[in-house]
Amino acid sequence: MNSNQLFEAIRKKQSFLCIGLDSDIQKIPEFLLSTEDPVFEFNRRVIDSSAEFAVAYKPNLAFYESRGAEGLNSLIKTVNYLKSTYPDVFIIADAKRGDIGNTSKMYAKAFFEEMQFDAVTVAPYMGEDSITPFLSYSEKWVILLALTSNKGADDFQYHTDKGERLFETVLKKSANWGTKDNMMFVVGATRAEMLSDIRKIVPDHFLLIPGVGAQGGSLEEVVKYGINSKCGLLVNSSRAIIFADSSDNFSLTVASKAKDVRDEMSSYLKQYHLI
Amino acid sequence: MNSNQLFEAIRKKQSFLCIGLDSDIQKIPEFLLSTEDPVFEFNRRVIDSSAEFAVAYKPNLAFYESRGAEGLNSLIKTVNYLKSTYPDVFIIADAKRGDIGNTSKMYAKAFFEEMQFDAVTVAPYMGEDSITPFLSYSEKWVILLALTSNKGADDFQYHTDKGERLFETVLKKSANWGTKDNMMFVVGATRAEMLSDIRKIVPDHFLLIPGVGAQGGSLEEVVKYGINSKCGLLVNSSRAIIFADSSDNFSLTVASKAKDVRDEMSSYLKQYHLI
Repeated sequence: MNSNQLFEAIRKKQSFLCIGLDSDIQKIPEFLLSTEDPVFEFNRRVIDSSAEFAVAYKPNLAFYESRGAEGLNSLIKTVNYLKSTYPDVFIIADAKRGDIGNTSKMYAKAFFEEMQFDAVTVAPYMGEDSITPFLSYSEKWVILLALTSNKGADDFQYHTDKGERLFETVLKKSANWGTKDNMMFVVGATRAEMLSDIRKIVPDHFLLIPGVGAQGGSLEEVVKYGINSKCGLLVNSSRAIIFADSSDNFSLTVASKAKDVRDEMSSYLKQYHLI
Repeated sequence: MNSNQLFEAIRKKQSFLCIGLDSDIQKIPEFLLSTEDPVFEFNRRVIDSSAEFAVAYKPNLAFYESRGAEGLNSLIKTVNYLKSTYPDVFIIADAKRGDIGNTSKMYAKAFFEEMQFDAVTVAPYMGEDSITPFLSYSEKWVILLALTSNKGADDFQYHTDKGERLFETVLKKSANWGTKDNMMFVVGATRAEMLSDIRKIVPDHFLLIPGVGAQGGSLEEVVKYGINSKCGLLVNSSRAIIFADSSDNFSLTVASKAKDVRDEMSSYLKQYHLI
């Protein structure tokens, strides 16, 4: 999937919602625990209830790896289910990997060959040769951390060299390593006021925006400062959608929460004449 | 294991060698491919041949994840084999993780509860709350990336704020998040000349030094600039030891290569009156 196809998917669903599958087995509805693979059964229900309203899904690897081989199987089944049932959705491995070249190559193999992800999140600290191995796959994406949504973002990401903050240096340098068809950047919704500065550096790239919902970021602010002529935003919500309800009827709540976000997004897409 | 116990293990074996189990199934001796779990069989032989000469082992997760659930099983079997057969060795998950707090907590669970690693490598970009969840386990370690061995280290790690390079800021800030008994730092052997500056900031911490061997760093230089009164070094070699020979007798070569490194390390430990 390239950036134009992603924009078309956004227009079609009137949504730029990404749903984070941070599927903590401790938090899923109790009635699923007696099934053979509770996390997959949970994910399948979340996906079926929300696929009409979401253009992307983003399993966070930690929630699967913490359950060992069993967790990995839940993940693989989830990705395969998405690919076979909803081939038009964009699937992101939220893995925040990054290592020396020959190792990053192995991670790329894990996410793009062993599993069928469309994109993987990567941490920039180790620089170009830790990132380019992920870019050698056609129609696969790197989503590079730039300015994250957590408090700890203050520790190093604002480190300033000759007036240029580290997250700006990351954007400037890395934008040349790929294209707007194989690189996006992570910018936390809790830092929405920085989006104007970020759009000066990467006006055309897609941004993946976590931090709306449980982390407190505002969708309105994100759109105000971040939207571009091809939308250019994937806004993620995890806990606020998938764990809004722990009853047997949770999937109705998932659908309703996802629809609410889609409706708000749809109104912004209209306001900016993108649909 | 705390830092004194690690130093005792180093004195006992007269070695501060860490062997990287970057066990790429494409590179292991052919005769192992017909076994039920070739990568585990390879690792077991590497370990049995070298445990006399090495204080630590460091499987790199990428080489296991790229083989899916099967790879994860090879990894789990390797860690369990080390724990049960050589309980005195230090086992590092080279994973370079790091995410928002509730996610890092899940990674910590994966490496310290689901698997029995003693330490995990973590990337600093997301700051304090991405790192502290790993520090809440007794006798478990975070090994934080400071100055890495690859070319891409030049891209961001030398970013300079008021005279302070990013890797120095990482060392200064993070040294307060843990202690010398639960935090180490990664410094590439290819950057050995930086070790004097680094020792000014963290004189007492252990450093994990990759990049000797296939990546070209010099053990002599590392010792010259990095050794402290409790050794304070774990020097890693991966490919130069484990893939030195692909014949049926490869384990003899592994033993011989590991012994060579141990002998050189032993002479340095004597020279600095640490044994």
